[in-house]
Amino acid sequence: MSSNWLDAVAFDADGLLPAIAQDHRTGRVLMVAWMNADALTETAATRRAVYWSRSRQRLWRKGEESGHQQIVHDIRLDCDGDVILLTVEQKGGIACHTGRESCFFRRLDGAADQAEWVVTDPVLKDPKQIYK
Amino acid sequence: MSSNWLDAVAFDADGLLPAIAQDHRTGRVLMVAWMNADALTETAATRRAVYWSRSRQRLWRKGEESGHQQIVHDIRLDCDGDVILLTVEQKGGIACHTGRESCFFRRLDGAADQAEWVVTDPVLKDPKQIYK
Repeated sequence: MSSNWLDAVAFDADGLLPAIAQDHRTGRVLMVAWMNADALTETAATRRAVYWSRSRQRLWRKGEESGHQQIVHDIRLDCDGDVILLTVEQKGGIACHTGRESCFFRRLDGAADQAEWVVTDPVLKDPKQIYK
Repeated sequence: MSSNWLDAVAFDADGLLPAIAQDHRTGRVLMVAWMNADALTETAATRRAVYWSRSRQRLWRKGEESGHQQIVHDIRLDCDGDVILLTVEQKGGIACHTGRESCFFRRLDGAADQAEWVVTDPVLKDPKQIYK
């Protein structure tokens, strides 16, 4: 068990760090979730994205319910060691639980006090059809 | 002061949320830092990335020392409202304090216990020349 590469990873006080998933072809940022050491270790071993669900307090193998797995191409670590960046192939083309490609489907339009969040992305699949 | 767009933003217990900066041309993820409401408001108003420095406990106008400002093209919010994604023009082509383009300059290579972080990016400018 000489997992020295894990020593470079700076988990926070809760044993977690944020992980970004980015589409390996388009570069689009798909989502951000959290990982603990187990999630990161399993992600590296299986090349499937595994996160830590803070709401459910358990490992979340992305796609376990939806089928929308993420096949991991690259795993990167930032300079401070406290953020992970995955490049992934997003199965089904849907990363977001709302049925959209990306969780970042709202863009701030307009200036200052008049600004508002505008939805820029269509729902590709009804969440009721994703999570049966 | 009808900044209703801020109401959709879910800051954490410390009043912060992570913000990703992504190159608007290449899609490369450059860095992740933190924002509080003031940082996000100023970012939206000035279209220059402003973060909250947790180490210095003050607003950090990116580039204030290095000159490596980030001109903000898009501001996006994720489905849970707790992560910001900026697409930016990175002045000087250097986002990282190590003098590299991106903070994500380490990639995990190899399998399981033999894996290691490999530096994939050159230092473009000596940090001692950036922070005088």
